[in-house]
Amino acid sequence: MKPFMDEDFLLSNETAKTLYHDYAEKMPIVDYHCHINPAEIAQNKQFENITEVWLGGDHYKWRVVRANGYPEKYVTGTETSDYEKFKAWAATLPKAIGNPLYHWTHLELKRYFGIDTPLNEQTADEIWETCNQKLQTPKLSVRGIIDNSNVKVICTTDDPADSLIYHQQIKDDPSCKVKVYPAYRPDKAVNIRKPDFTDYIQTLSKAAGMPINSFSELCEALKNRLEFFVSMGCKASDHGVDRVVCEPASAEEIERIFQKRLSGEIPTQLEADQYQTALLLFLGKEYHRLDVVMQIHYGVARNTNTVMFEKLGPDTGFDTISPDNGSVGLIRFLDALYQNSTLPKTILYSLNPKDNELIGSAIGCFQNEDAVGKIQHGSAWWFNDNKLGMEKQLTDLANLSLLGNFVGMLTDSRSFLSYTRHEYFRRILCNLIGTWVENGEYPNDIPALGQMVQDISYNNTMRYFGFEG
Amino acid sequence: MKPFMDEDFLLSNETAKTLYHDYAEKMPIVDYHCHINPAEIAQNKQFENITEVWLGGDHYKWRVVRANGYPEKYVTGTETSDYEKFKAWAATLPKAIGNPLYHWTHLELKRYFGIDTPLNEQTADEIWETCNQKLQTPKLSVRGIIDNSNVKVICTTDDPADSLIYHQQIKDDPSCKVKVYPAYRPDKAVNIRKPDFTDYIQTLSKAAGMPINSFSELCEALKNRLEFFVSMGCKASDHGVDRVVCEPASAEEIERIFQKRLSGEIPTQLEADQYQTALLLFLGKEYHRLDVVMQIHYGVARNTNTVMFEKLGPDTGFDTISPDNGSVGLIRFLDALYQNSTLPKTILYSLNPKDNELIGSAIGCFQNEDAVGKIQHGSAWWFNDNKLGMEKQLTDLANLSLLGNFVGMLTDSRSFLSYTRHEYFRRILCNLIGTWVENGEYPNDIPALGQMVQDISYNNTMRYFGFEG
Amino acid sequence: MKPFMDEDFLLSNETAKTLYHDYAEKMPIVDYHCHINPAEIAQNKQFENITEVWLGGDHYKWRVVRANGYPEKYVTGTETSDYEKFKAWAATLPKAIGNPLYHWTHLELKRYFGIDTPLNEQTADEIWETCNQKLQTPKLSVRGIIDNSNVKVICTTDDPADSLIYHQQIKDDPSCKVKVYPAYRPDKAVNIRKPDFTDYIQTLSKAAGMPINSFSELCEALKNRLEFFVSMGCKASDHGVDRVVCEPASAEEIERIFQKRLSGEIPTQLEADQYQTALLLFLGKEYHRLDVVMQIHYGVARNTNTVMFEKLGPDTGFDTISPDNGSVGLIRFLDALYQNSTLPKTILYSLNPKDNELIGSAIGCFQNEDAVGKIQHGSAWWFNDNKLGMEKQLTDLANLSLLGNFVGMLTDSRSFLSYTRHEYFRRILCNLIGTWVENGEYPNDIPALGQMVQDISYNNTMRYFGFEG
Repeated sequence: MKPFMDEDFLLSNETAKTLYHDYAEKMPIVDYHCHINPAEIAQNKQFENITEVWLGGDHYKWRVVRANGYPEKYVTGTETSDYEKFKAWAATLPKAIGNPLYHWTHLELKRYFGIDTPLNEQTADEIWETCNQKLQTPKLSVRGIIDNSNVKVICTTDDPADSLIYHQQIKDDPSCKVKVYPAYRPDKAVNIRKPDFTDYIQTLSKAAGMPINSFSELCEALKNRLEFFVSMGCKASDHGVDRVVCEPASAEEIERIFQKRLSGEIPTQLEADQYQTALLLFLGKEYHRLDVVMQIHYGVARNTNTVMFEKLGPDTGFDTISPDNGSVGLIRFLDALYQNSTLPKTILYSLNPKDNELIGSAIGCFQNEDAVGKIQHGSAWWFNDNKLGMEKQLTDLANLSLLGNFVGMLTDSRSFLSYTRHEYFRRILCNLIGTWVENGEYPNDIPALGQMVQDISYNNTMRYFGFEG
Repeated sequence: MKPFMDEDFLLSNETAKTLYHDYAEKMPIVDYHCHINPAEIAQNKQFENITEVWLGGDHYKWRVVRANGYPEKYVTGTETSDYEKFKAWAATLPKAIGNPLYHWTHLELKRYFGIDTPLNEQTADEIWETCNQKLQTPKLSVRGIIDNSNVKVICTTDDPADSLIYHQQIKDDPSCKVKVYPAYRPDKAVNIRKPDFTDYIQTLSKAAGMPINSFSELCEALKNRLEFFVSMGCKASDHGVDRVVCEPASAEEIERIFQKRLSGEIPTQLEADQYQTALLLFLGKEYHRLDVVMQIHYGVARNTNTVMFEKLGPDTGFDTISPDNGSVGLIRFLDALYQNSTLPKTILYSLNPKDNELIGSAIGCFQNEDAVGKIQHGSAWWFNDNKLGMEKQLTDLANLSLLGNFVGMLTDSRSFLSYTRHEYFRRILCNLIGTWVENGEYPNDIPALGQMVQDISYNNTMRYFGFEG
Repeated sequence: MKPFMDEDFLLSNETAKTLYHDYAEKMPIVDYHCHINPAEIAQNKQFENITEVWLGGDHYKWRVVRANGYPEKYVTGTETSDYEKFKAWAATLPKAIGNPLYHWTHLELKRYFGIDTPLNEQTADEIWETCNQKLQTPKLSVRGIIDNSNVKVICTTDDPADSLIYHQQIKDDPSCKVKVYPAYRPDKAVNIRKPDFTDYIQTLSKAAGMPINSFSELCEALKNRLEFFVSMGCKASDHGVDRVVCEPASAEEIERIFQKRLSGEIPTQLEADQYQTALLLFLGKEYHRLDVVMQIHYGVARNTNTVMFEKLGPDTGFDTISPDNGSVGLIRFLDALYQNSTLPKTILYSLNPKDNELIGSAIGCFQNEDAVGKIQHGSAWWFNDNKLGMEKQLTDLANLSLLGNFVGMLTDSRSFLSYTRHEYFRRILCNLIGTWVENGEYPNDIPALGQMVQDISYNNTMRYFGFEG
């Protein structure tokens, strides 16, 4: 029996151990997609207690505490203390056997707090104390965590209207070693049926310093903001859409839909799809021109619980894999960009793992010499970001494309303690490759294999996005 | 090499063996969803031969005998003897390598008949003789089987119009140790497009002792029957629907659709979906009020072979996973109940395993303090009720929710010999957990793990449904 | 650690090794579905170099070379030499870790060229020389390859308008040992919305020696050609459709749609579906009458990259798994044939592996005494033709039907070097079965198991199609 989560955690054979410990482990981290707050890097925030850093915005954990029958006050309520919330989480965790939260939690306790004790109701008090003490040290300030995690590059996720003031502060601060770049995520400009769309257009108009009274002015404003983002080091954009659609319509039609919305009327679903198509084709062209990677995250049904959405707002644990066909227009959309010679480097993520094989085969239809591995099947995302989900994504990618060119892992996290997810990924990657080698399915050429896992861990990402080394 | 199906069948490591033999194996069985006939318990039926108890109504077996090229007379025909049918089955079985039927068959031969010989054409005669002799003993009467299987609670599946006379007989019979409760399955009241719908409404009207001339009278009658079922110990309802839809319509519209159908006209698919939505929202509310668990089984295309349906009727082996999107309205339906504060404890089962991740993530959006693990992802169902299907359901559940709160296995069977499916499930569960522990993915805390497998095997189910211990 | 791809490649235990080496390995090959050119058998073609035989038409390889960032000239261009194309492929291959191309390549190098060296940039020159020399020997002529691969039967894929002149030549050539039969693939007559449909109707008209001015004449012409194919030994038909639909329409309606198309107007999607339904129901009836197996390959989106399609035409690496529901009418289509007592032996293949369980359960609804395993779930196809895809198809088939009756593997290939895919399949099959036996999940009866793997490798196929032994 292997000890619980020791140094060879998830590494089931000697080749896997060699690849991880001698090659992957030492590589720096590029976290090219996450949801951390750049202000907290700029200010080098220090956390009050483990609940703040761990449970503050982590709706993954909130969901399982609710699933364990705890009332909402132990999750997001203000009437319970941070200590009580921590206890609820600690009492829930042992039931999360087989859940990535179980492994993430203990990796984070080990790497950041030096704690090897499994967290449960009995050990909660001791762990609460130890963590809170260590959180007061500089090593566990935001920058302390980042530096100790060997993170070289972080891409945050930012609205086009954002001033990027904290990115500028970080850039101007010579004491901050990590590179922090914005990523451009114009979802609010895409979601034309949302109630706050017209307010957002005004916000964007102010940020861009120009009126937005037409679709073409919207495009111009978004282009201005994208150019500003690029001037701040932006190499990645991101789109969160329920479905990737491709419903081409004339410029006049798109303008009519936009004006309809400005006048307060909600477009039909078809009109919204036409609008999304037109806007994403425009943005794809701009990404291509400015060498910005286009990420598309699709297949989510968001805010599914109306009562809780009205109480807590978005990103509070009420999103799920969508029952709709999120890939419906994917292939035609990529083709439309390709036809215009404006297809940028693209990374596709579906929340539904049943789309893996579709994505894996679809990307092969749009590769060309613009880049090595130009169109990518993104790392197992959100509900799939677990051992099996990652193994499946890696295996599907390997079966259908070139694993050697994969740009690898990202945290997608709201917490600074999540960098151990890169460790988790690298262990799984090394174990998969090591197992193939041990089974005689690939030659036992350790230097070449070591290079490959280092490429997937770090080098491919740096090259693909064009980050400075 | 492990011997064929010995005591450590499916248990690949020491932790798995300990968890199974020292903890799971000894737990009683709650079979909270099955299709056995309560009359046969009341009458303590004794079977004539192995064909009657094994092949009498088991369309799983019928399908593979047909797939082996046997004419229908060897399956359901009256022109062949029970012995000939048994021989056809015995000749077919060896080809079912990797099929759960192969394991179920030999588990049943071992546990109920003490037979360790693999069944095939050569051994068929000997096994036929041995089984038939033992079937004459009290140990293999219906109650003998149930008691020797350590079954404490059985929920049958019953139409709201059913008198539950046999449940009453069983209740009144002090010699019957097992608790037998009805489960409420009002499919015939939901399937408004079926030819026999109006006849059924009359049957229900008689059973409820009230006229049903309107949708609200239908609701009233169903409510009366549900209350009667609850008075008989009913803790579970069940719905078999092709698709979970959510198409809200006004009360007037629903009434119009119901009247249209009473007048003999078949509603459109949209009207049927609106009707289903209205009726299930009403019933959900009642289940919530009466603390009855709502089970939804969806994703089936039934009676797909018209010729054979006309010859043999339903439940004869001509159902399949549906190509339609069965989850289309699932999330909105749960949300609608949640909005009305009428969402009962709910267990979701899709026949299509590609829905697993969707269900696993969707249930997390509707959990609350009403119950521990209030919304459940049901055990691998029907075509998925095999080793891989169960491992996938358990793993998906573990990845996306709290495995420790799972309410576990049921037989869904028409045969009294199927209780070994609980053994099969428990072995798979213990092996999965044992493997995680042996791989260092969970702490090696045997008492805690033992408690967990006992909870999933029995305790969680008792608590969740509220059966008396 | 197992050596790289030694004689026990993919065989992880002793039972697997015994089953493969003592039973499966020695069986002849029936390649009942492929895309090789019969002219090259008739002429016993000798290849100029390894690029011609390996990269000439193999769009699997083209896709990964493009994915590695090579310009198109290294793939299909005329401005680069065969040597340069080979080098691009050799440089790409090491990144294809976990891809079936990696295994296929090295199996082919071993079996046909005696080369054990892994192919990469460094070894490319040596392997280029060795292969090209050996390609000049009679052993590596087309017939040399076929005979040395122990291939007994080949079914090519042929248009109904094809003269089958090369099949006749092969038949008349006593020096040709392998049996080569045509397979009937009338896709061009089905694809009524394609631009070249009317031209094709004229071609078919000429081939059939009769005018085609109506749908019934079309049917008559197709029937004539099918009878001719059957006279040439044809035992298999094949249909490549995006979706299996079932939209019955009156004879008048079908005639109207056909006339509309003849007059140059493109039918709507619904009309095309009605036409496809009518034509496939007719052809199904003829297949049933003439005892021809109906293969249906569905779920593909073809020619998705418009720019590249216009440059290179079809079958050049721009096809993918379709996002549409390819199974939408599958069950109703099979039922329609069953109702008319005209359902032929049928093999179903979906490009999307998420359809596996649906197919596996659907086939069980239409089995009968016409044949053992009359309706089959076809071997893992195209993008699924890899180790995991085959294991999944075999396991799903085993779970849902009778693995023992499976008709097994085919190459689906355009290359004569692909017969090692049968070896790959047999190793995977023997390993799967061997693993079950070693785990105590099936009795350790080697003669019976050996018979089973020989049946799945060869005997079932011969019996099912009715090839002469």
